[in-house]
Amino acid sequence: MKHFLNTSDWSRPDLQAMIDDARAMKASPLGDSLQGKTIALLFLNNSLRTRTSFDIGARQLGGYAVVLSPSGGMWPLEFEDGVVMDGEAEEHVKEAAKVLSRYCDMIGVRAFPKFVDWSEDRKDRILNAFATYADVPVVNMETITHPCQELAHVMALQERFERDGRGALDGKKFLLTWTYHPKPLNTAVANSALMIAAKFGMRPTLLCPTEDYVLDARYIEQASRDAEENGCALTVSHDIDAAYDGAEIVYAKSWGALPFFGDWAPEKDIRDRFRHFIVDEEKMAKTDNALVSHCLPMRRNVKITDAVFDSENCIAYEEAENRLHVQKAIMKALASQ
Amino acid sequence: MKHFLNTSDWSRPDLQAMIDDARAMKASPLGDSLQGKTIALLFLNNSLRTRTSFDIGARQLGGYAVVLSPSGGMWPLEFEDGVVMDGEAEEHVKEAAKVLSRYCDMIGVRAFPKFVDWSEDRKDRILNAFATYADVPVVNMETITHPCQELAHVMALQERFERDGRGALDGKKFLLTWTYHPKPLNTAVANSALMIAAKFGMRPTLLCPTEDYVLDARYIEQASRDAEENGCALTVSHDIDAAYDGAEIVYAKSWGALPFFGDWAPEKDIRDRFRHFIVDEEKMAKTDNALVSHCLPMRRNVKITDAVFDSENCIAYEEAENRLHVQKAIMKALASQ
Amino acid sequence: MKHFLNTSDWSRPDLQAMIDDARAMKASPLGDSLQGKTIALLFLNNSLRTRTSFDIGARQLGGYAVVLSPSGGMWPLEFEDGVVMDGEAEEHVKEAAKVLSRYCDMIGVRAFPKFVDWSEDRKDRILNAFATYADVPVVNMETITHPCQELAHVMALQERFERDGRGALDGKKFLLTWTYHPKPLNTAVANSALMIAAKFGMRPTLLCPTEDYVLDARYIEQASRDAEENGCALTVSHDIDAAYDGAEIVYAKSWGALPFFGDWAPEKDIRDRFRHFIVDEEKMAKTDNALVSHCLPMRRNVKITDAVFDSENCIAYEEAENRLHVQKAIMKALASQ
Repeated sequence: MKHFLNTSDWSRPDLQAMIDDARAMKASPLGDSLQGKTIALLFLNNSLRTRTSFDIGARQLGGYAVVLSPSGGMWPLEFEDGVVMDGEAEEHVKEAAKVLSRYCDMIGVRAFPKFVDWSEDRKDRILNAFATYADVPVVNMETITHPCQELAHVMALQERFERDGRGALDGKKFLLTWTYHPKPLNTAVANSALMIAAKFGMRPTLLCPTEDYVLDARYIEQASRDAEENGCALTVSHDIDAAYDGAEIVYAKSWGALPFFGDWAPEKDIRDRFRHFIVDEEKMAKTDNALVSHCLPMRRNVKITDAVFDSENCIAYEEAENRLHVQKAIMKALASQ
Repeated sequence: MKHFLNTSDWSRPDLQAMIDDARAMKASPLGDSLQGKTIALLFLNNSLRTRTSFDIGARQLGGYAVVLSPSGGMWPLEFEDGVVMDGEAEEHVKEAAKVLSRYCDMIGVRAFPKFVDWSEDRKDRILNAFATYADVPVVNMETITHPCQELAHVMALQERFERDGRGALDGKKFLLTWTYHPKPLNTAVANSALMIAAKFGMRPTLLCPTEDYVLDARYIEQASRDAEENGCALTVSHDIDAAYDGAEIVYAKSWGALPFFGDWAPEKDIRDRFRHFIVDEEKMAKTDNALVSHCLPMRRNVKITDAVFDSENCIAYEEAENRLHVQKAIMKALASQ
Repeated sequence: MKHFLNTSDWSRPDLQAMIDDARAMKASPLGDSLQGKTIALLFLNNSLRTRTSFDIGARQLGGYAVVLSPSGGMWPLEFEDGVVMDGEAEEHVKEAAKVLSRYCDMIGVRAFPKFVDWSEDRKDRILNAFATYADVPVVNMETITHPCQELAHVMALQERFERDGRGALDGKKFLLTWTYHPKPLNTAVANSALMIAAKFGMRPTLLCPTEDYVLDARYIEQASRDAEENGCALTVSHDIDAAYDGAEIVYAKSWGALPFFGDWAPEKDIRDRFRHFIVDEEKMAKTDNALVSHCLPMRRNVKITDAVFDSENCIAYEEAENRLHVQKAIMKALASQ
């Protein structure tokens, strides 16, 4: 039984098959492949888009989503085996996963980092514990990566490049650029963007202000390996001009620098010095007529200017819409195992 | 594409057609006019009745409601164009509306006033922004007016007057009476009651303790214009006896006085002096066997006495039930555009 | 019209018929006995299992659940008749129940004790008020008893004893053992376990540390009466060895001592002395190969050791799963009145 935890667990052809199916369902949304089936959506963090799109997607396929969003967060769960549970944890994750597996045919999990200790958060414990103990497939609805967003993004790129006669993704220069944001955000979408660009044969460039903003080695290495397999290389750059030069895709995202994880005050001063990483017309002029996107929500004129975001080259709404379609394809693929 | 923001945007025959359809569906609740369609219900304030009735209504027509009630309120939205979004707002309302439009076929919005600055609240910004940016019809689920309640009320009046052989609504004296409540409440239902009474040809009287409790000029003027078109006039009165005299409908509601908006302490002392505005048997005796109603929730023996509320003339439960039926008719009308 | 408030309101054959129906639906989950019908699930306390299982259960029978979980609790309701409602209560429970009855075909209510005054909590006012005023059947989703858990437990016992050729429940020694927990918990499941064991002909033994931990007389008396009718007797014991000796079912649960209700600090010191009430292999060795269960969530190695909980004799997951099936049977029985 396969889960959908990370795109790195799946082959490119399998992922492409999901995207193709998503495109078919975008044209014809209703179906019965989840008839009588239920997916539990466990949101340990708030969600607008993910929750709505999974809920509607399940329904359009004849299934049903049960949204579980424990107010004030989940009751504390125990993750270790053999512990005397006389502390905060009211339930072992084993029981939570096993019981949901008795009720549902699939479990989606959203669990953001706690932003205190990256060495702890990078274990992705809640998602992995559900995958370990659940008897049904588990879907990552964003934890420290965001694989559903990855597929939605690739689908939007493929749609637009095909429409415009600009061909396949292979070999295209993909720029993931850090942008400013008043808060130190999750690296999930950034990790994901880099990995999926490499997996789908693009030439990934990570542009960020300093060494401190480079992503976790796990994702850099995963993306490097995949890029190499596709005959490309991953570039890490702190040079805006070089990074934008010839880019065919620009993906904007902000995140907090990992070396300051849990001790964000000094990082704030550094971050504030790099507001000029905003995606604007001047930078876009250096690209090869690049498509632009962002996962939303997006602070206008902080991450991307209005002129760029509202331009024809921005595919952010398409990408957001595609969340619905790819998630249906993911659920279908998992249900048909 | 038409939204359902206020009854003033719709003609009386169009509204009557919705009510007639609602009565047909009250007799025969199940249908397929929303088959495969989804309505997003965005609740920025709590709801029991509205949420339940929209959810069930969509379902009874073959559709599906997704209830979005951001805990702790929506993340802060930006409403202005061209702003550098480096403050509180995480997302421009444009993106929220556009993305929901990609997932759903209709969007319901509940957004109460903030009770700090009426000149700001009266802009009804959240509702109007969704109507501006959404690509699908938007329904007002109560903001500074409550048009769904209006239709439910008129439907209940028509049902009861027909049953009792008391004829059409035209020319009937409709009394909207302010009543006491420990807190300064929203004027939405009061604004709505006055407007719908005028629109449906009744003779509206607004009874309130003092000048300070008169409703916003926008609604007074709208109701006056509609009343005049129907050959009636709007009366504003502070005289209990005169206002109740000959009334055929008494609608009770409490609200805070607009001149004290955002500075409620002094208003409280004034409000406390008018507890005698309660709807009781003595006052009802002055009417022409008037029907009584209230939008619920209702503080018994503060706004209406038990004797009046539990009497045969009270149609509050019918009105509450009719919310389900009229909202189905509204969704049907919007979906069939 | 019958509600499902407590198993004591129903005959053993009627309850057995529900369990039998639940077993049939466990084998064949989909049906149409709630076609077009809606159940409102009013959660005044959080829930994972109950909420998910009712929601999915209604759906599997062609119906629909509307989950109402007022954030920050329900707005305060008034329960007394004839009161001038100028205090905290915004609505009389009469209106809440009557209006929900207009929208839904059934109402589920979860309302835990407030843990301040047991003489007040034992009135089970919210549940009983809904039962009094609702015009549709009301289901207890756990208040001061938990009848849905009772049926799920009996079903799991019957399934396992049948599978193992160990015969009917009648005459079997049923041990309800208090166990330690860091907090003073609700007695609902304990009250329920004792009552259902007696009702189904088992020989109930209540094992608890001291007199203070004996359950409310109402439940002791109900269980005693039922036990006597079945030719058995209820035993209350503070002797671990005697209580476990020959037990065929061990049900573990923690609860706070009623004499300290609302003044829990001194109770904590007493409770802390009885950690050795944990269900472990040593104690289980004294039983007649007893089945073990718990209602979940369960603190491992505090209430039950890993070795016992993960043993073949533990039926807690079956019991949890059966919540789905018995609740479907309950809804079906109530809908078909």
